[in-house]
Amino acid sequence: MEFADVVRRRRMVRDYDPDRPVPPEVRERLLEHAIRAPSAGFSQGWAFLVLESPDERDRFWAATTEGGPPDRWLTRMSRAPLLIVPLSHKAAYLDRYAEADKGWTDRDEARWPVPYWDIDTGMAAMLMLLTAVDDGLAACFFGVPPDRIAGFRAAFGVPEEYLPIGCVSVGYAGAEDIRSPSLRRGRRSVEEVVHRGHW
Amino acid sequence: MEFADVVRRRRMVRDYDPDRPVPPEVRERLLEHAIRAPSAGFSQGWAFLVLESPDERDRFWAATTEGGPPDRWLTRMSRAPLLIVPLSHKAAYLDRYAEADKGWTDRDEARWPVPYWDIDTGMAAMLMLLTAVDDGLAACFFGVPPDRIAGFRAAFGVPEEYLPIGCVSVGYAGAEDIRSPSLRRGRRSVEEVVHRGHW
Repeated sequence: MEFADVVRRRRMVRDYDPDRPVPPEVRERLLEHAIRAPSAGFSQGWAFLVLESPDERDRFWAATTEGGPPDRWLTRMSRAPLLIVPLSHKAAYLDRYAEADKGWTDRDEARWPVPYWDIDTGMAAMLMLLTAVDDGLAACFFGVPPDRIAGFRAAFGVPEEYLPIGCVSVGYAGAEDIRSPSLRRGRRSVEEVVHRGHW
Repeated sequence: MEFADVVRRRRMVRDYDPDRPVPPEVRERLLEHAIRAPSAGFSQGWAFLVLESPDERDRFWAATTEGGPPDRWLTRMSRAPLLIVPLSHKAAYLDRYAEADKGWTDRDEARWPVPYWDIDTGMAAMLMLLTAVDDGLAACFFGVPPDRIAGFRAAFGVPEEYLPIGCVSVGYAGAEDIRSPSLRRGRRSVEEVVHRGHW
């Protein structure tokens, strides 16, 4: 698909057709594009946990949600046949920048203006969201609550130093997708958010 | 351009042709795509500072670099005819999630597993990097050092609560572009960074 069409068509989809799995070649393309995200110092401090079988997906939802009867959101979201959890790895960045060519041997986090480990991993997630659209599928990016992260790590054996920056659900769009009420806020225009030459 | 080609061709370019400005319609397309990035709760807590005239760009480089004779990196980078600084706005997210439908009236940052204000703004930067490639131009994303942020804000009248997550330089690629030595590290493969079903 033309790049500009992919950008225009991308939106968060929160219902999936449970009878249409993600073709394996699409899954692999999502991952191949994800690792083409940029990263500071080419640190590539990221990991991706791919969950596909019903058992794996059930374990994800059990670990990351409240329990009890599923609400409307969870009922639809849990129909997604593929979940990919992008994880950031701060230690890999601190290690990379302690190398001779960078020289930040104190590994001091105050040297970093923003957490590029999270931002770069977010760019990888963005590439997956766009790739899903390019292949005619749908996706959503959503967060894992802070108080569920330990349980998520335990459920899948994820080391402490990897942090899930969210989860990308992927599948063919379902018939019951409900647009986020947040969209009623309206998109802020270019002129509202852009400052030219000075603030 | 086909989406997959844009993804494959994108790389950081660090030298620009000083005699070829960025066409205004490309500049506007960069911005129109940037604001199509997703954002938590449709907060859209971001801003973009566009710097184009020689005076604006000189002020940026003076505020964000060490001073003294420009090194090889700065000599080439400062040839970029267009700089767009994406800024994150945490307060807009805390305000948005204090609204009735979200209910986080305590504005407690511990509710956020990762700084989505930075991640979402990074996704907007990613869309600009890709859009430059789609239009046959080149771009680079680089950071503003923590000890230069106050000076940068002062130079352009940026309010304290907006944080530059970096800067996107844009132009036609220059002849003296030097690939980052970091690339010698090699790209980590899908199999190295992907975990299937469990860690």
